[in-house]
Amino acid sequence: MKTVRIGLLGLGNIGTGTYKTLEMNRAQITRATGLNLEITKILEKDTTRERGITVTPEQFTQDPDEIFKDPEIDIVIELLGGIEPATTFMLEAMKNKKAVVTANKAAVAANFQKLNETAKANNVEFRFEASVGGGIPIINALTTVLQSNEFVEVLGIVNGTTNYILTQMTEFGFKYADVLKVAQEKGFAEADPTADVEGIDVANKLSILMAIMFDKHISPNDIPTKGISKITPKDIEIAEAQGCKIKLIASARKEGDKLEYSVKPTLLKASHPLASVSNEFNAVYVTGNAVGELMFYGKGAGPLPTGSAVMGDVMEIAKNIYK
Amino acid sequence: MKTVRIGLLGLGNIGTGTYKTLEMNRAQITRATGLNLEITKILEKDTTRERGITVTPEQFTQDPDEIFKDPEIDIVIELLGGIEPATTFMLEAMKNKKAVVTANKAAVAANFQKLNETAKANNVEFRFEASVGGGIPIINALTTVLQSNEFVEVLGIVNGTTNYILTQMTEFGFKYADVLKVAQEKGFAEADPTADVEGIDVANKLSILMAIMFDKHISPNDIPTKGISKITPKDIEIAEAQGCKIKLIASARKEGDKLEYSVKPTLLKASHPLASVSNEFNAVYVTGNAVGELMFYGKGAGPLPTGSAVMGDVMEIAKNIYK
Repeated sequence: MKTVRIGLLGLGNIGTGTYKTLEMNRAQITRATGLNLEITKILEKDTTRERGITVTPEQFTQDPDEIFKDPEIDIVIELLGGIEPATTFMLEAMKNKKAVVTANKAAVAANFQKLNETAKANNVEFRFEASVGGGIPIINALTTVLQSNEFVEVLGIVNGTTNYILTQMTEFGFKYADVLKVAQEKGFAEADPTADVEGIDVANKLSILMAIMFDKHISPNDIPTKGISKITPKDIEIAEAQGCKIKLIASARKEGDKLEYSVKPTLLKASHPLASVSNEFNAVYVTGNAVGELMFYGKGAGPLPTGSAVMGDVMEIAKNIYK
Repeated sequence: MKTVRIGLLGLGNIGTGTYKTLEMNRAQITRATGLNLEITKILEKDTTRERGITVTPEQFTQDPDEIFKDPEIDIVIELLGGIEPATTFMLEAMKNKKAVVTANKAAVAANFQKLNETAKANNVEFRFEASVGGGIPIINALTTVLQSNEFVEVLGIVNGTTNYILTQMTEFGFKYADVLKVAQEKGFAEADPTADVEGIDVANKLSILMAIMFDKHISPNDIPTKGISKITPKDIEIAEAQGCKIKLIASARKEGDKLEYSVKPTLLKASHPLASVSNEFNAVYVTGNAVGELMFYGKGAGPLPTGSAVMGDVMEIAKNIYK
């Protein structure tokens, strides 16, 4: 059996979840690909933290070139997060003829064209299924099964932290600040929650969805974006009186040549399939001119759901390389 | 631009929907593939029916060999329905080195191994996304993005006719026979509804899902199957009193080496995501050991949703042939 060697950039929560998915499901992964997949080198400063996985000291490196220049490595997984140095590292990997897989929505949204064009120019694959909706298989569906459609609209609940906060406010009448505090204590929200609660993370994901669905890359900075930090229990009461729920919705709609898009708290009728998407769950609601309405629902974050999507991309690439 | 020539077996409702999807979305299909896709020959007895599409008399043939032996045809779409002659035709196409796409759940469920093995032996692709859940991209998600998972469970509402009947019975207190009659008048149910209402169609789809998720092909005949024809308004009342809805559920669950499966009317708590799947909509609820719970929701039938999935398969194959 052939061995496919993988370099991993970043062994934080998502990196650890990806590594765990490979360890835990090795039998299934080998059965599905006919290949032996190995993460042979890991770029990570913290080499001592206990992560519940088996990593030898020799796997760690502090020099990204040890991954990019390793002729035995075929695939680089980028899980550093943030735009830089992640983007530079991905481009460097591609120039060294490595396929790249990432879960990094900020980097993909900021540099969608450059990353895709560099991959193409170097004849390597670039996949980023985990960048939108975590474990939910939305990107691949849009680019394969649904590719015959002219897309009309997308509505997404694509941030678990804000959906958790809004759900708790709705179900128990809690105030925003109180739920946020509990969420931070439980680890559902970051110490600095700005990117989540102000809709920046959602705008990144909408930028990626629009680039794929409408072949138009709009910088997240150019997407009108409003978060949930100003939502009050009174707002939620008023919504309920109208038979509605408030959700933080990423939306884009195409009419003729015109594309309208925004990220904002939105009133949804309680009967809308997105209205019952609660807590940390995510969902993406897509309308295509042939397929009609579709919804994809699942866990939009977390080490194993995201690791599942990263490994799915890695396996597709491995099969394509060695088929 | 290269032209990919396609042979179509059957120009009924789904065949017409597939043809329409190609006509309607030609610009998108060409953009996504870089190829010119043409249905050049159609096996169909009824050459005169008005279908709202442009087909020339020269495209029709009464001899399947005119498709199988045509060296210019790369892909055969089988939309005849039923196990035979569809299976024989698909095998014949594969032996003539044509890739095959089908929406035919009965044929795929009955001959899963033979069809897949014959495709492999002839080094051609065999795709059947539209066979389960119509336009919903479930099969491809299971075999690509989700392929790193050990699957634990699948629960599916995969028949629109029975879900429509149960929804109408639940919402309006109608009797089974009365809703069926209206559904037949509206064209939602067949004149002979047995395959739908007795769960046979659902068992075919469950057989396909299990073969993919659990690598185990179980004949639909060996799946314990109960339909909805005996459900009374009283049953639905009793379910409601318990906070439940009755849905016709295809289920399979793996525990260790044991796989349990059935098709039967099932009580679902109203809070379960599948409980709010109404009327003609379908949904498949999947649990994987890494990704957790996922749901795919959309139109499980109809000419254009099914045509969308058929064309998605055709486009993937065309890209693989000419990349």
